[in-house]
Amino acid sequence: MTLNNSPIITSGFLTALSQIVGKQRVYSDPADCWAYGYDNSRRHELPGGVVFALKHEEVHDIIQLCNQKRVPVIPRGRGTGTTGATVPVNGGLILSLERMNSIHLIDPANRAMIVEPGVTNQEVQIAAGQQGFFWPPDPTSAAFCTVGGNLAYNSAGPRAVKYGTPRENVLGLRAITGAGEEIRCGVYTTKGVVGYDFTRLLIGSEGTLAVITEATLKLTPLPETKRTLRAAYKDAESAGQAVAALMSQPIIPCALEFMDHQAVSLAQAQGGVDLPSGVGALLMIEVDGPTVAMEDAITKIKKAATNTGLLEITVAGTIQETEKLWSVRKALSPALRTLAPKKINEDVVVPVSHLATLIRGLERLAQEFAITIVNFGHAGNGNIHVNLLANPDNLAEMKRTKQCLERVFDLVLSLNGTLSGEHGVGLEKRDFINKEIDPTTLDLMRRIKDQFDPNGILNPQKMLPLKA
Amino acid sequence: MTLNNSPIITSGFLTALSQIVGKQRVYSDPADCWAYGYDNSRRHELPGGVVFALKHEEVHDIIQLCNQKRVPVIPRGRGTGTTGATVPVNGGLILSLERMNSIHLIDPANRAMIVEPGVTNQEVQIAAGQQGFFWPPDPTSAAFCTVGGNLAYNSAGPRAVKYGTPRENVLGLRAITGAGEEIRCGVYTTKGVVGYDFTRLLIGSEGTLAVITEATLKLTPLPETKRTLRAAYKDAESAGQAVAALMSQPIIPCALEFMDHQAVSLAQAQGGVDLPSGVGALLMIEVDGPTVAMEDAITKIKKAATNTGLLEITVAGTIQETEKLWSVRKALSPALRTLAPKKINEDVVVPVSHLATLIRGLERLAQEFAITIVNFGHAGNGNIHVNLLANPDNLAEMKRTKQCLERVFDLVLSLNGTLSGEHGVGLEKRDFINKEIDPTTLDLMRRIKDQFDPNGILNPQKMLPLKA
Repeated sequence: MTLNNSPIITSGFLTALSQIVGKQRVYSDPADCWAYGYDNSRRHELPGGVVFALKHEEVHDIIQLCNQKRVPVIPRGRGTGTTGATVPVNGGLILSLERMNSIHLIDPANRAMIVEPGVTNQEVQIAAGQQGFFWPPDPTSAAFCTVGGNLAYNSAGPRAVKYGTPRENVLGLRAITGAGEEIRCGVYTTKGVVGYDFTRLLIGSEGTLAVITEATLKLTPLPETKRTLRAAYKDAESAGQAVAALMSQPIIPCALEFMDHQAVSLAQAQGGVDLPSGVGALLMIEVDGPTVAMEDAITKIKKAATNTGLLEITVAGTIQETEKLWSVRKALSPALRTLAPKKINEDVVVPVSHLATLIRGLERLAQEFAITIVNFGHAGNGNIHVNLLANPDNLAEMKRTKQCLERVFDLVLSLNGTLSGEHGVGLEKRDFINKEIDPTTLDLMRRIKDQFDPNGILNPQKMLPLKA
Repeated sequence: MTLNNSPIITSGFLTALSQIVGKQRVYSDPADCWAYGYDNSRRHELPGGVVFALKHEEVHDIIQLCNQKRVPVIPRGRGTGTTGATVPVNGGLILSLERMNSIHLIDPANRAMIVEPGVTNQEVQIAAGQQGFFWPPDPTSAAFCTVGGNLAYNSAGPRAVKYGTPRENVLGLRAITGAGEEIRCGVYTTKGVVGYDFTRLLIGSEGTLAVITEATLKLTPLPETKRTLRAAYKDAESAGQAVAALMSQPIIPCALEFMDHQAVSLAQAQGGVDLPSGVGALLMIEVDGPTVAMEDAITKIKKAATNTGLLEITVAGTIQETEKLWSVRKALSPALRTLAPKKINEDVVVPVSHLATLIRGLERLAQEFAITIVNFGHAGNGNIHVNLLANPDNLAEMKRTKQCLERVFDLVLSLNGTLSGEHGVGLEKRDFINKEIDPTTLDLMRRIKDQFDPNGILNPQKMLPLKA
């Protein structure tokens, strides 16, 4: 086997690894490894090796070996993350879990499903759907991203506004700690308070504490029906007011998505979008529930969404009309990709009452730093995807963008928000989180990590700021 | 001041404590302390002292002092817990939080509320209700129990079946660790994934990791209306089937309560209860939501609740009828208290599909050990309050009861259940939890505790089994 230039991944180590999983599931040739060293942050580093696990016991043996040899392990699903959390730092071994993609059990009576980490979100939805259920987390990348990745970053998507994030939709886990020990946490029931809650501690820990090998997901019955509304406002202020009003009445939408002026303009530039003139912000609203309650729900949603800044509110009556309403939002992603292939995409969160202030503040920062910022996202959770468009070949622009980004984070924290709603920290935000978390709490987090991973082999240098 | 016989609580320590909070908020006379040494487990031990904190900074200084002097601290709300978690072991200092009962903020636009730990659940509900919201956790003791206690045991109540437990309804915490350090965790938003999830780790940790001084609660808009149904079945088997059917359709009840044959008989013996003859199990079902959806919801609930074992299903049309339907359940508590003032009350959980098997197994155990077991509880979560009635003056009966209890736990675990849904572990279940949690995971929990509480001063000997 061809060794790459990693000083840690020795031929002896690779031989031991092959003894666990067989030679064909160990990559060491740089040409093979390269494809496993990137994620959607567009960072890309060469791993020292790649190993593919097929089952819990293999993960156990691999981590035991890595712990013994002090080889860094970077657990990885499909690499759709946006923060560099699965990109190796100084080599190390990529532990690919994409082939651990079995659904062990679907249990409709108990609304539960047991899956391996490599199953995709979509596969979960399809299997659950056949029994009349769904699993609420639905990131935009659902067709490709793995459940393991969803758990690593607590990734949710639009439905979280009504149905919660993975932390509210997972019952229990089986995992291997950095010490190579198997732990089981949580329960197979919807209540349980025996022992400390390691389930939620592992969710959102970005593979720095343990590698999840099995998850018991909590399923939700599919609603009878769903209806879509689109509300156009003259400005972000009015849309923000509407979001706060929508969130404080009893009909909780199952999606409440926001697009700012820039996002609407970009989508409009793609053509084929019918919107009244003067639209400064847009809300996409979905409500689900019993068919019999829909008309009433729509009336109430319309009422809550109405304020002096509302220009137009449209309710889709058919599937075609629904698709037409969503076309503005759908046009946005290709437009963004064309305009700025290397945009910086953040996913900050602010309390919903501060949405308008956030958008105003972002507009001011865009002016100050002479860059374009496009904002859209899960308004019902106050979770806004802030896209700073910058040309990476323009060094001056990149410098301004980085300065602006720091000010974006300061703005978010001044509004009592958080730096990430569902993308996580990884490498991208690692050096900013001490703005949000105080030194005492951060220090305690480091000590907790040490208990799970005494030799620091699990996804090193990710998530927690490096020690001074 | 009169010192009691605690060897740890010295007069020097009490003087230092008085310097923090003033003399009038430090008790050391056994006559004063005695009232703070019990909980609803009916255990009662004399604390070495009692201190009443009024604010975060005082809790900080008290724990700093206790940590320095190695004095055990037992945080306490109103003592409604059932597991002895607030009963001192070998003296120690009771830290009463019942006077830290301020509601700092109600923020309807962001559906959040910031409270101190000593505020009662009911006070939270009243304050939230005035703004059109509620906080989902609603233990039976809501009128008396504190939010701090609810968080300590992740106590939920009937509404959890639809709205979740405290872990799903708390956004963030401020707390003092056993090292006397302030930590802040969580966010003020409904999404957030920066740093490890200490919020859920502290919830359910029974005051063994840190003392919560402030909690940001996630509020839910009050539903427009609520309707009550009562379904009587010939046996637990049929009721269990109905529960599984109810939980796998889209109309999730906001309460789904179960009473077994013994519970129904006890209630009937109180008189004034109208039930058909031959009732072997009862379900109380509540649905909430928009008024316009109620008739449809009731039709669907009735359909799901119907099977060959259904004897009668009654829907309340008025408040009076609702009260009448609940009268059977309401009659149970006084009946139980009369019959067995010292019952052992467990709150085991099994997957809902195993409810009937659990009840059958419990009936068999009742026969085998010649004791009476009365079962009722939150069936939608599979959370059953198993009441073993025993006369504490009858030593043989008590011995049989304890033997039976161990078998109850074995039965629950054999059905993939958990030993506690919402009461927690405390002292009562401490020596059983190694049946549920494996040694590796337990050991890791102990090491996590050591990081939060390096000198082991916080609620010692509770929750985790003692080391061999």
